[in-house]
Formats: sequence, structure tokens, C-alpha cells
Amino acid sequence: MAFKSDIEIARAASKKPILEIGAKLGIPAEALAPYGHDKAKIGADFIHSLSDRKDGKLILVTAINPTPAGEGKTTTTVGLGDGLNRIGKQAVICVREPSLGPCFGVKGGAAGGGYAQVVPMEDINLHFTGDFHAITSAHNLLSAMIDNHIYWGNELDIDTRRISWRRVMDMNDRALRQAVISLGGVSNGFPRESGFDITVASEVMAILCLAQDLADLEKRLGDIVVAYRFDRSPVFARDLKADRAMAVLLKDAMQPNLVQTLENNPALVHGGPFANIAHGCNSVIATKAALKLGDYVVTEAGFGADLGAEKFFDIKCRKAGLRPDAAVIVATVRALKMNGGVKKDELSAENVDALVRGCANLGRHIANVRKFGVPVVVAINHFTSDTDAEVAAVKEYVSRHGAEAILCRHWAEGSAGIEDLAYKVVELAEGGQADFQPLYPDAMPLLEKIETVATKIYHAAEVTADRTVRDQLKAWEEQGYGDLPVCIAKTQYSFSTNPTLLGAPEGHVVHVREVRLSAGAGFVVAITGDIMTMPGLPRVPSAERIFLNEEGLIEGLF
Amino acid sequence: MAFKSDIEIARAASKKPILEIGAKLGIPAEALAPYGHDKAKIGADFIHSLSDRKDGKLILVTAINPTPAGEGKTTTTVGLGDGLNRIGKQAVICVREPSLGPCFGVKGGAAGGGYAQVVPMEDINLHFTGDFHAITSAHNLLSAMIDNHIYWGNELDIDTRRISWRRVMDMNDRALRQAVISLGGVSNGFPRESGFDITVASEVMAILCLAQDLADLEKRLGDIVVAYRFDRSPVFARDLKADRAMAVLLKDAMQPNLVQTLENNPALVHGGPFANIAHGCNSVIATKAALKLGDYVVTEAGFGADLGAEKFFDIKCRKAGLRPDAAVIVATVRALKMNGGVKKDELSAENVDALVRGCANLGRHIANVRKFGVPVVVAINHFTSDTDAEVAAVKEYVSRHGAEAILCRHWAEGSAGIEDLAYKVVELAEGGQADFQPLYPDAMPLLEKIETVATKIYHAAEVTADRTVRDQLKAWEEQGYGDLPVCIAKTQYSFSTNPTLLGAPEGHVVHVREVRLSAGAGFVVAITGDIMTMPGLPRVPSAERIFLNEEGLIEGLF
Repeated sequence: MAFKSDIEIARAASKKPILEIGAKLGIPAEALAPYGHDKAKIGADFIHSLSDRKDGKLILVTAINPTPAGEGKTTTTVGLGDGLNRIGKQAVICVREPSLGPCFGVKGGAAGGGYAQVVPMEDINLHFTGDFHAITSAHNLLSAMIDNHIYWGNELDIDTRRISWRRVMDMNDRALRQAVISLGGVSNGFPRESGFDITVASEVMAILCLAQDLADLEKRLGDIVVAYRFDRSPVFARDLKADRAMAVLLKDAMQPNLVQTLENNPALVHGGPFANIAHGCNSVIATKAALKLGDYVVTEAGFGADLGAEKFFDIKCRKAGLRPDAAVIVATVRALKMNGGVKKDELSAENVDALVRGCANLGRHIANVRKFGVPVVVAINHFTSDTDAEVAAVKEYVSRHGAEAILCRHWAEGSAGIEDLAYKVVELAEGGQADFQPLYPDAMPLLEKIETVATKIYHAAEVTADRTVRDQLKAWEEQGYGDLPVCIAKTQYSFSTNPTLLGAPEGHVVHVREVRLSAGAGFVVAITGDIMTMPGLPRVPSAERIFLNEEGLIEGLF
Repeated sequence: MAFKSDIEIARAASKKPILEIGAKLGIPAEALAPYGHDKAKIGADFIHSLSDRKDGKLILVTAINPTPAGEGKTTTTVGLGDGLNRIGKQAVICVREPSLGPCFGVKGGAAGGGYAQVVPMEDINLHFTGDFHAITSAHNLLSAMIDNHIYWGNELDIDTRRISWRRVMDMNDRALRQAVISLGGVSNGFPRESGFDITVASEVMAILCLAQDLADLEKRLGDIVVAYRFDRSPVFARDLKADRAMAVLLKDAMQPNLVQTLENNPALVHGGPFANIAHGCNSVIATKAALKLGDYVVTEAGFGADLGAEKFFDIKCRKAGLRPDAAVIVATVRALKMNGGVKKDELSAENVDALVRGCANLGRHIANVRKFGVPVVVAINHFTSDTDAEVAAVKEYVSRHGAEAILCRHWAEGSAGIEDLAYKVVELAEGGQADFQPLYPDAMPLLEKIETVATKIYHAAEVTADRTVRDQLKAWEEQGYGDLPVCIAKTQYSFSTNPTLLGAPEGHVVHVREVRLSAGAGFVVAITGDIMTMPGLPRVPSAERIFLNEEGLIEGLF
């Protein structure tokens, strides 16, 4: 059989009408707003009507630290959802929406892969139902209202040097990272330095993903701190009277998007915040709705478990009152070998020694996730180049750490290749072992929260921070933000802040370079190292290879 | 009866499912991609399948020069469509999509008014089906690819001082008009001056509105001139390999949007280019599809007839091979009084003398439209303050100019108030009087085309232009652009370039300050006076008053 690309597989899918997928979950047609025949938004009233129902089981899919070798976290999330449906559970998949901009750079799509995909993958990867465009509009409306306020007299006394709210665009455009705006004379305002982030880095994205409903969304939008006055007091979006119009722009974007997998199982694809400066999970509203609609909900978190799972537990679950029942850690033989020191172009050769060395990374993630009181299983996402000896070595390693590693072939075989994992997940979730608790209590001081994550999860020796950072954290505590969880922005490639330290480094120092308040989203961001919030395009962007073929189908996107 | 706002009337509408509206036009359900239950896009294959059908009659709705008193051109377009359906014609309305940004400034919605509206008006005025967001993305992808090309070595030898392609955002944001970008050091590129226009000013918008199909769209996108080399030769979007990916982003946006009027008649709301630097009409693909689907198509052009109708005839109809059968010129007693010198706060008092003076404006538009071989009727869009004497004076004036003016009460009464106009339009359209021809031939030199419009339509004495402008026009002629029509960017308030010269000024001078080549759209823009391509927000933006009420409905938008 010839090898098929993701897009070829996706196109060959026999999709069911989206109303039929909704009906499988008991969603009446009138509660679905269709977008084409294969996408729909679930109405707010219907979601509200579910509140008395019992919740299904919540399964988190997370991963080892990412490497260029790929782990397939979304693919495994989709595959496991299909697998659970295959063994008779009503399972709903909750994943993040991909960002449009990076599709034109180097990144492939983010709708799964092989025979574990959500479809229509072209739409999901491009405009989809317009959620990210709405976030862009809402964010930039606030930006325009800030400069407009200053233009008309600056009644709020905003210190134009201390405006933290930038603009956003869903595009990889390095030229916009830093700019001097309002040039050209009196009618264009007061020149000042600012710039653009990519839309997924917007606090509006994080807010949309954490808001319980439209009222909560509007409240959080109002809570956004956009700037400081000359007396250093914060200026809120509410002060600019921007919050309500922003909520209007986000009204439809707040509703979860229903699509289907290649096997016609339901998936909610909704929200996609960064997993460094934000919490990196799909929306609370989608996850909660899914828990009311299915026996099982399979959802993912960003990057590796040190960033993604930690934030899923400490931010999303804490704030939304979610109690996960089990976690799956995705690993691949190739990525473990990279963690064990093998170079990318040597990954195809068997190397059990390096693999076992690299397993230290996996072992730590297993132990870390257990610190949250959540039982763990490891999914080995199978690649054709994996040897039996390598797979056996991973299984043996994991077994010695008191867990089980299960070989999964969902990429090649769909749900038939992931049945074992599905049964194991059911066993864990129904075994009553889960006793979820966040890593630290709300009441802990902010710096101590950062230290707790750094030492317990990253295995750092200590956290350092300049006086200005420490003073800032204290000031926020005095202003009433001390109860917020922390969101640590760190390289995703290592447990440390050095992206080249693979495996399971310890004793390292985590330096907090800067802290930011995401008062609307409800967390304090601690930045360690350089965080890129606006990517650039590569020398040969994939945009050059993307086109419509003669049948009007998209080619080259993935 | 209490006075109802537009949004109250729109909300009280009893909408039919959009598939039912499509069925009225013979569009099968599978050819419609629904967006919610009240909006749908018409599929490309279905549109293509219509090509052998006979065309219906094409009716243009245009207006006198706009004043702050309002004319109601879209309202009359919608009303006339309803009126034609009422008297037994299968009429399809083709109007432009409103821009999101200005809704948060001062502008009200642009979906008609009173009992002549297209619905759902909140959606139509905000994100709608995402067309403008797609245009923003496609435009900005090209922008990012230009700076990315320079960043990676500038193989095309682009002169960074001569990049004409800016960025766009669908927001009123004066701070973005002029900016220095790519600041911050080596990794952010080469600093240069640029800026943002509002999305409707994008050449991509004009291209989408003039393209015949996706293949033509892609060709035109490739033809965009984005910059010049150091040797002054043009750099095309095609040279950057951006054109095909842009077409991918615009694939769905190219399909016309089907909605309905308050009276459940079909309307295609699609495209919305500026009527100064672009041609200001809805899309060719929508107009042509409508002509295949209905006996009658009622469409609008931007601003007054001097700008809008002239461009509709000389650009849209010329290029798309359309042959309009009749034109309606909308006038109001109030706007005519303003043209006759009455101040805005004195408009409610009867003033027949001023009205008759102001009718000179109307008279010239009547004569102008006839120069294109299109028969004309005048619609007096009735306001409650109009007196019988005033209405009689307009009718008498128009009658003396060999046409008929018909009082229309569609705003207050819907189709019942516009039957007379509908009958008259049918009489004109079926009378075989129309003998459409553009004002000038393709072969005429570019400057002579500008002079022809200025003297014949604006009644200017002469056109002046600096040598650089004249040389540029000559250079384009030598490069093969001489056959393009011209698109004159002029104030909409006057026949002259002075916005305060109301009525019917003559003998004035039109100075062409700058010329621009829209090679993808297919016209040469001649700029006279200041043209604002990025609006600002007012002191108290309407955004401050826009909110979701307790039922989740949008308030304050209009």
C-alpha cells in the first residue's frame, strides 16, 4: 500500500453530516449552528441546560518534552477518543484550534495525523469558524481604544511608556514585533513604541479559554490591565469601556465547535492559547460541555507535561473545578532517543542504550503527574522505524517505574491500533485511584508558587529573580492578585531553562527575568529565558507551496 | 405606534430557514454551505452550472451626492428588491458587505434601515461569514512574505523605500496609519516606514469583487504590484510566490453570501470595496450569479452617482460584460435642501426654494447616468418631515428634466411603500431603452480617460497633474497598462474636489495629486485631494455603547 499523506487520508474520509454527529451526543439540531455541513457551534442555551447532568470521566493526554522528532500528542488524543468509542464508551475529544499563521511558515497542521485526525482538516487549520479572527478583532479593538483615548486627551492619565497591551495578528510576521506607531503628525496621535504578537498569544485567547460563560467572559475582559498611570495604578479595559463591545465580538467565538474524527466520532475543537505565556489548553466551556455529553472526555495540554500538564492541573482544573481521572503520557521511541543524545539524522538506527538514557525524561514526567494525584499510563506512539527491542526497553523502563507503557498504532490503523490503551484508560479511570489536587494552594505567596513548580516539577535547585521582579510580585499580592496561580513561560525542550539540556536535568537554576499580570485570564506569568510571542517565516515559507488544485482542493498545506 | 429602531425591527423579523430562501431561487440544499440557520454561501460548482442560463434584468441603485442628512441607498436597494418581488417578479438583491471596524466608531450599520433591511443584521455588520477576515489574512500574508523575502537576502532586489504594499486591519485605528516597523535588531529585519489601511481599502478586496472565478482571482492576485526594484521595475505578488496561498485563504470568501430581507426575499451580500480608491460595488460573482437566478437583480454602487455609478459602469460593467437595464437615483428632500444651502439643524423646516436650488445636483446626476445609455428614474426616499409641497417640487423638477420622481415609503412600510417605483423600474427595464456603453473606450490614453470623466461627469473645466504624474501614466501605458479603466478618488460630497461645493458646480479644476496602479484589480487610481484609507475613532466611539443584554442579544450596535 502506498504511503498516504495526512491530507489525502483526510480527504478520503467519509464524513457524516454534522447534525448527525451532534445527534449521537443528544444535541438537538436547533442547538447547533452549522458552518458548512461538517462544522457546527453548540448553542449557549443548550450548554446551560446540561448543568444538572453528571460528568463523564476526564482523561488528559500529555507528553514527554517535545523534540524535532515529534510525539503526536494531538494524534494520540484523537486516536484514544476513537479507541474509547470503539470499545463501547461514548467518548468526546477536546482539542485546541490550530493557529492560521504558522501554517504558512514551517508548521504542519494540528488536527492529528494519519488515521487519527479530526476533519475537515483544511478548514480547521485555516479560518475554521472564525474564532481566532474574532479574538484578533476584540484584542485590536481594545488597542485602538487605548490610543484613541490618549488622542482625545488622555483623561485616564495613562503613562504612554507603560502600555502593556499590544496588538495581535494571526500571521508569522517578524516585522511587526517592534514598531513605532502613531507617526505622521497630529492627526495620527502621539508616537510611541509598541508591536504585535501572534493572536494565540493574546490574553483574550486565554480569557476565552478560561471563561465559564459569556458573563464571566465579559467580567474577565474588563479585568484586563492594559497600562499603568503616571502614579503606577493599573488601567483596566473596563476603564476604557471596551470590555462590553469586546464581548459582543466574541459572542459566537465562545461557543465550542463540533467536528468529527475520521471514524465519525465527535470532537470539540475550541480555543488554543500559548502553552508558555498562557496555559495551553482547550476551552473550559468545551471541556465542561463534553463532560456532560460523554462518558469519557479526552483532552490535551500543550508542550510536555512540565509545562502543559502542570498548567492544565494548576490553572485550568483548579479554576474550572475539573477533576481529571487519568493521564496519558505520549512518548515515541525516536523522541526518547533524542533525549538520550541521538542526533536527528541517526534516529532510524536502533539504539537501545540511548533510548534507556532518554527514558529518564519520561520517568520524571510519570512521577510529576502523580504528584497531582492522577494515575498515569504511557502511550508509545508507534513509528515504522521502531524496533521490537526498543519498544520492549521502554515498556520495561516504565514498568520499573510502576506504570504501564502501551504500544499504540492509531496513526497507521486508527482506533483498531489503540484498543489496548483505551481499555487501560478505562481501568485507571474507573479504578477510583484518582485524587486530584493542585500542586500548591491558592494562598501561597506568588514567588513561593514559582519555586514550588520549579523545584517539584522541573527539579531545579533554586529560583532567582531581581528585586524589581520580587517587588512587583509583592505589589500584586497587595493589590489582591496573590491568590492567582502562576503560569511559567519556559522553553518546552527541557525541564530546565536551557533548551539543550535534554533528559532529566536537576540542580539547575531558574531565573525569572520578568513577570506579567494576566488579570483577566487570572494568572501571573513568570518569564524565564526568551519567549517569542511573534514567530517569523523561514527562508522558504510553506506558503510558497500551498495552492488550490484544478478541482479547487487545497494542496501543500501539510 | 412607538418608533422602532432598526435593530428592534430586524430582531422581530420572522426569518425563514436559509435553505428555504435558496430553494425559492432553485438553489439545491447541497449547493449551499450554511453559516448558522440564516446565512449561507453558494457553492462554486453550482454557480458554474448556471452559465448557460439567460440573464435577468440588471437595475443599478445610485444616489445624489451624499450629505450628513442621509439618502438611504442601501435601504432603497433592499426596498426595491422587496417591491419587485411584491409585484410578482423574482428579484434578487445584491449589496455590499459592511466593514466591521467602522461599527465601533460612528457609523451605523449598513444593512438597510426601517422595514427595508437584510437580516441577520447584527451578523452582517460584524463577522458575517468571515469574508473580510479572509481578505485581511490574505493581504497580510503577502505583507509578511515581502518583509520575509528582504530578511532572507532580498534576492528580488526590492527597493525597500518603494514598497507600496502595506498591511490592513478591519478596525478604525489611526495609530497604525504610519509606523516604522522591523525595529528591535537583527532578528526583526530591516527597519522601514510603512503602515496599515482598513481592510476594505485593500486591493485584495477590489480583486475579490472583480474576479470572475477562483482561477481569475489567483491570476489577479499574482498581478498585484507590491514594490519596485532599484531599477524601477515592478515586483509582483507572483514573484514572491504568495499568490497561490492567498487564493487558498480566499477560497470560501469568493463565494457569495445568501441572506434574506425582512420580507424573506433573497439577497446576496458580498464584497465591499472602497468607492474612492476602488470601484465600490458588490462582487461580480454575486451579481452574475443573481442575474442567472432572478428575473431582476437590484444592486447598489458607492457614494453618489459621480463616483459610484461612474465606476459601476466604467469599471465593473465594462470588465464583467454587464449591461444594466435601468438606474434608480435615490434622493431625499433633506439632502436636496442641504445641497441647496440649508444647514443640518434647519432641515426639518419646509424650504421649497432651497430644495429647488439643491435639485441641480439631482439634475446633473440624471443627465450623467443617461450618458451611459441607461434609463433613469428618481426615488424620493420619504422622511416624515417632508412636506407635500417639497415632494411636489422635486417631482416637478425631475419631470422638467424628462424623468420621473416617485415617492417611496419603503423605510416605513416595506414593499407596500415602493410598489410604484417597482412598476416604473419594470417599465423602464422592459421598454428596451437601455443601450449601455461605457463613457470612454479602453484604447484612450489614461490621462484622457481621467479628463473625460472629469469634464463629462464632474463638469470640471480642466484636469491638472504634475509632470511626475503624467510621466508615471505614460510609463504604465508603455508597460501595457494603458487599456485599464481609471478609478478616480475624489471627495464624495461634491462634483468638484472641494467637499463644501454642493449643488452642481462647474468650471472647477481637478488636480491629480498622485496615481496608483491596482494591477491586480485592473484599474489605475487617480487621487484628487486627501483620501483617508484608515479611519480613526471619534471622541466617544460607539464601541462604548455596544453590549450583550441579559438575553445575550446585541444592543447599541445601530
